[in-house]
Amino acid sequence: MNYNIALISGDGIGPEIVAEAKKVLDKVCEVYGHTFSYKEVLLGGASIDAHGVPLTEEAIADAKASDAVLMGSIGGDAKTSPWYKLEPSKRPEAGLLAIRKALNLFANLRPAYLYNELKGACPLKEEVIGDGFDMIIVRELTGGLYFGDRKTYEENGVQTAVDTLSYNENEIRRIAVKAFDIAMKRKKKVTSVDKANVLDSSRLWRKVVEEVAKDYPEVTLEHMLVDNCAMQLVHNPAQFDVILTENMFGDILSDEASMVTGSIGMLSSASLNETKFGLYEPSHGSAPDIAGKGIANPLATILSAAMMLRFSLDLDKEADAIESAVQSVLTEGYRTVDIMQDGMKQVGTAEMGDLIAGHI
Amino acid sequence: MNYNIALISGDGIGPEIVAEAKKVLDKVCEVYGHTFSYKEVLLGGASIDAHGVPLTEEAIADAKASDAVLMGSIGGDAKTSPWYKLEPSKRPEAGLLAIRKALNLFANLRPAYLYNELKGACPLKEEVIGDGFDMIIVRELTGGLYFGDRKTYEENGVQTAVDTLSYNENEIRRIAVKAFDIAMKRKKKVTSVDKANVLDSSRLWRKVVEEVAKDYPEVTLEHMLVDNCAMQLVHNPAQFDVILTENMFGDILSDEASMVTGSIGMLSSASLNETKFGLYEPSHGSAPDIAGKGIANPLATILSAAMMLRFSLDLDKEADAIESAVQSVLTEGYRTVDIMQDGMKQVGTAEMGDLIAGHI
Ligand SMILES: CC(C)[C@H](C(=O)O)[C@@H](O)C(=O)O
Ligand SMILES: CC(C)[C@H](C(=O)O)[C@@H](O)C(=O)O
Repeated sequence: MNYNIALISGDGIGPEIVAEAKKVLDKVCEVYGHTFSYKEVLLGGASIDAHGVPLTEEAIADAKASDAVLMGSIGGDAKTSPWYKLEPSKRPEAGLLAIRKALNLFANLRPAYLYNELKGACPLKEEVIGDGFDMIIVRELTGGLYFGDRKTYEENGVQTAVDTLSYNENEIRRIAVKAFDIAMKRKKKVTSVDKANVLDSSRLWRKVVEEVAKDYPEVTLEHMLVDNCAMQLVHNPAQFDVILTENMFGDILSDEASMVTGSIGMLSSASLNETKFGLYEPSHGSAPDIAGKGIANPLATILSAAMMLRFSLDLDKEADAIESAVQSVLTEGYRTVDIMQDGMKQVGTAEMGDLIAGHI
Repeated sequence: MNYNIALISGDGIGPEIVAEAKKVLDKVCEVYGHTFSYKEVLLGGASIDAHGVPLTEEAIADAKASDAVLMGSIGGDAKTSPWYKLEPSKRPEAGLLAIRKALNLFANLRPAYLYNELKGACPLKEEVIGDGFDMIIVRELTGGLYFGDRKTYEENGVQTAVDTLSYNENEIRRIAVKAFDIAMKRKKKVTSVDKANVLDSSRLWRKVVEEVAKDYPEVTLEHMLVDNCAMQLVHNPAQFDVILTENMFGDILSDEASMVTGSIGMLSSASLNETKFGLYEPSHGSAPDIAGKGIANPLATILSAAMMLRFSLDLDKEADAIESAVQSVLTEGYRTVDIMQDGMKQVGTAEMGDLIAGHI
């Protein structure tokens, strides 16, 4: 079959890791007889360099015209980059927020999965993480504090800054439905995270989530306060299967959960709209400090490409092939530097891509 | 000397643990020749039972008339308590928010400290937590999302809920000053946590914190995004000394940091205003599931009493005596069930209080 993929190489290590994912997809095409047509789309720093803004109308149109978007990583280094001096709306990250909104990517799926081979990298004790740690965070991605009205104003010489957290029932319902649908294919347990003892938006969240739960009698729903969840992810992460939460809580908790695995360089993500369309990217950032050195781990991006095949293109067999290739290469002992352990074979970004492609 | 202490026993295990802290303070009085006059103040569930509201004007007046407030814990169990059905403004937790505001307790200090004796309870691997883990979170406590305007409204049959996050320069400055003052007595490093790549309130936060930092040339300031901080607390907690952050981020991160130690039953906290006045309470919750069983760990409350002596009453020697007593009792191998380990001697709430008092 023929598919159109929009590629966003992005900033920092983005171009290096996307190149390896493309290498693997090329091999998938060869073996399974597909054709992928790629169109490079500019977002973030690359778009600022070319057009002065982090996202253009043309980029949105190109992304919309594709069957799916595969992305590297967006964003500068707050410490060293001059972007840090810019208004937030002009920074690379603003492009990311804007494309999520423009493509209506309200559902962010972030698996946190620990390969047995990589247990050594996990910061938690063996008895805490247990065997087969595998959970997924379903984060609302186009509402809440990150998309609310904001302003900074001065009164009597004193500046005040205001951000707004707003959710309506429909926004909550559609993300809850995604989470319950996913739970049906997993362990049938949803933990909905909020701060309902304080926030109005969390009270509405709870109410709507409970309504949605009625349509899934087989799924066990529990509510957890966000502060408690931040603790439980460290104390007993194995209790979770699907966490459902709003945008900002999801931002914080999904990063915490990735680090609980100790191998954020392995974690993929998908951002979906109401159709099969989605944007796929690694969970990690643009790591400007190691950009261009050929040492970045491309596996999260390669696994994101597998998610893309599965969710947007319905190519399950092909997605399975990529995931098994990653498993085989880990079993054979190949590691990039971020997940390197004694006795293993250290390889660079391109070698890792070659190894995965070689197993397809 | 003579001091007036307001005691808020609170909900759940609150009364049991406050009784032990009082036992220890009585011994301090005896040994060092002070007189503490106690006044019981109702807050939270106890106030709802007696007066139908979680906080009364009289309770505020009593607290204000005291030299310091020592508290157990407030709040019901969302799963089993009927409070869960109430409007947030009528729940026990609302009393806690209201008293913070009424007493202007804008600075919440939450130490996360790991006793060597309790390393076994730490969920992190030995090489991750290292030796002598000791950090403190300075959380803004009377502003931001938990105190902003909020409303829920319906339009065309669809409900929307809105919460507001607002900070002005003065609110940011005074908490930053607290954090830098504390840093001067510690390792002279402040990590200010925000989401300045998205939020206006975080941009103002960064600006004001940088202004305050100019008055503390010896202190190293670094900024960190909240999602990254949630990761770093798991990945490399030893990098932190003082974390300075706003109310909600502080709520989440301080709970995460306490659990990183694995012994939240040991962690005290102080909430201060601009004077020496403060409210002292354990970092843990009201644990309704074990209330009344005589097994709760009173050490966090006892250590909070020590903080009270030090910060509000200028009784440093007496505070030291309590802290050494806790250290001695741990060294001797006594443990409540939450921190119990093989080969140690398990004791209940009252026995633990007796042991500490015995060492004063
Ligand atoms: C860059 C930033 C705006 C973004 C977010 O917070 O949503 C990032 O942290 C993420 O999680 O994808
Ligand atoms: C009970 C709740 C309102 C409170 C808060 O979030 O401030 C609690 O979690 C805390 O951290 O003291």
